[in-house]
Amino acid sequence: MDILVVGAGAVGGYYGGRLAQAGARVSVVARSDYEVVKNGGIHIESPAGDFHFRPHGVFRSAAAFGGFPDVILVGLKVLEHIRTADLIRDAVGPKTAILLIQNGVDIEPPVAEAFPNNEVLSGLAFICVHRTAPGKVLHQDYGRIVLGRYPGGPSETARRLAEMFRRAGVPCEVTEDVITARWQKLVWNAPFNPISVLCGGASTQDMLGREETTRLVRAVMEEVCAVAAATGHPLPDDVVDRMIADTRKMTPYKTSMLLDFEAGRPMEVEAIVGNAIRIARRLGVPVPHLETLYALLIGLKGGS
Amino acid sequence: MDILVVGAGAVGGYYGGRLAQAGARVSVVARSDYEVVKNGGIHIESPAGDFHFRPHGVFRSAAAFGGFPDVILVGLKVLEHIRTADLIRDAVGPKTAILLIQNGVDIEPPVAEAFPNNEVLSGLAFICVHRTAPGKVLHQDYGRIVLGRYPGGPSETARRLAEMFRRAGVPCEVTEDVITARWQKLVWNAPFNPISVLCGGASTQDMLGREETTRLVRAVMEEVCAVAAATGHPLPDDVVDRMIADTRKMTPYKTSMLLDFEAGRPMEVEAIVGNAIRIARRLGVPVPHLETLYALLIGLKGGS
Repeated sequence: MDILVVGAGAVGGYYGGRLAQAGARVSVVARSDYEVVKNGGIHIESPAGDFHFRPHGVFRSAAAFGGFPDVILVGLKVLEHIRTADLIRDAVGPKTAILLIQNGVDIEPPVAEAFPNNEVLSGLAFICVHRTAPGKVLHQDYGRIVLGRYPGGPSETARRLAEMFRRAGVPCEVTEDVITARWQKLVWNAPFNPISVLCGGASTQDMLGREETTRLVRAVMEEVCAVAAATGHPLPDDVVDRMIADTRKMTPYKTSMLLDFEAGRPMEVEAIVGNAIRIARRLGVPVPHLETLYALLIGLKGGS
Repeated sequence: MDILVVGAGAVGGYYGGRLAQAGARVSVVARSDYEVVKNGGIHIESPAGDFHFRPHGVFRSAAAFGGFPDVILVGLKVLEHIRTADLIRDAVGPKTAILLIQNGVDIEPPVAEAFPNNEVLSGLAFICVHRTAPGKVLHQDYGRIVLGRYPGGPSETARRLAEMFRRAGVPCEVTEDVITARWQKLVWNAPFNPISVLCGGASTQDMLGREETTRLVRAVMEEVCAVAAATGHPLPDDVVDRMIADTRKMTPYKTSMLLDFEAGRPMEVEAIVGNAIRIARRLGVPVPHLETLYALLIGLKGGS
């Protein structure tokens, strides 16, 4: 399988490397890290064993790839200034499937609309992984992937990708309802990401260590469940209790939004909060707690 | 009139000094600043003209005052560890009136319950004033006071105090419904104080400079109006629009909570947010935006 990774940061580097281990021919488009990755590939430090990912080809752009891969794996952040469709367009052939391994909800439409005749796969990564330097990725923990055809249904490509991931030791689950899977992941992301930032750098343990903040976490989770149900993707009744209980058992954890904020990088506010709010408003679902977090994050981004 | 100021910081120093200018015999209880104030009094820098306030007496405690003044003016912050009733008890005689010039709502009960036979006056200061060093107060702008008997009704003492304030150039209004006045002031304080802190140091202009944060300001204001109405103290219909319009006209302003936060001082979270939330919960008024701000401030106080 010919795979082109666009966005050779932590997510793209790690999962691209795993697919290469499974025998795929994996090339990457690297922009800022082009020279380093071209010359030395990507070094991945992992508790499962460090490994080196030497891409089949390294390119400055999708056009430079000079052909059409079977799959484009998008590991880019979801940010307003990153136009994913434009960045991959030149490598999207008639039979190319596009796999988006990205955060948030409702992040597929711009790509699905730009390539209406291509298969779009949507993937959720449950992983702690960071790019520590150009060509260097630190995989700290977890790694499971859930993926499926967008907006739903079975997919032979998804099945084959999942097999490869598993062959490389990555737990991978195929779903025929990836939209529900995205909402379910958002139940966790929507409270913990913004609150960790707005509370001045709180870990999951800090957030669940006080009654008022736990109450807020729960209120935001319930709002996300209500929006998901209103979109026709109801979540299990016990999802809120289960996520809070599971998070209490986790090692105290810094969210990706907090890491971005602390490093001065843009945060995925729209993918993780804004999109859900726009859907809630369209469907008339009240989400006052989520809207408060959103307004504060917007204010924080533009703060003095 | 014999007046004892307890809490000779910015508010106590400024208004105590004004009452002395009006001819009252004003003593102060100073704790951390005792030596400086005892030796040099309090210097007040003000756009209306700098002035020097030499108290009639300076004491380390209310007990050391050695008698009972006509009025105790409390200029202390409203914080859990500051037990106002205990701090004034030894100077509260049978005829002593207690004037609380403090922020927030529902801040009078501990004092009213501790001294059920004394007149309690509640006062709101609309002022920008800061203690810049021991014995030094910077009055930046405004200064109006609204005061009245708690929980309501006419008061001869309030009338006389107001006269003295006016004589010293301080606009002062007596109200027979100070609880409504407190709710009205909270309409401003409840959004702007927390949001200024949670948005990483936002001025009033920053907060009203973005649609999402303005929407949040308005939502919190409307919640405060709903709670006020539920307590039997409805506010004017146009109060929200008016306050937002007035704030847009103000010079960009840092809230007191933000100044406290930036200086590492405790913030008046309970007086300004927590008390209102507890009343809302008791009366079954939903205040999800306010609860979100509260939980984040609580999380921030204990943040890592």
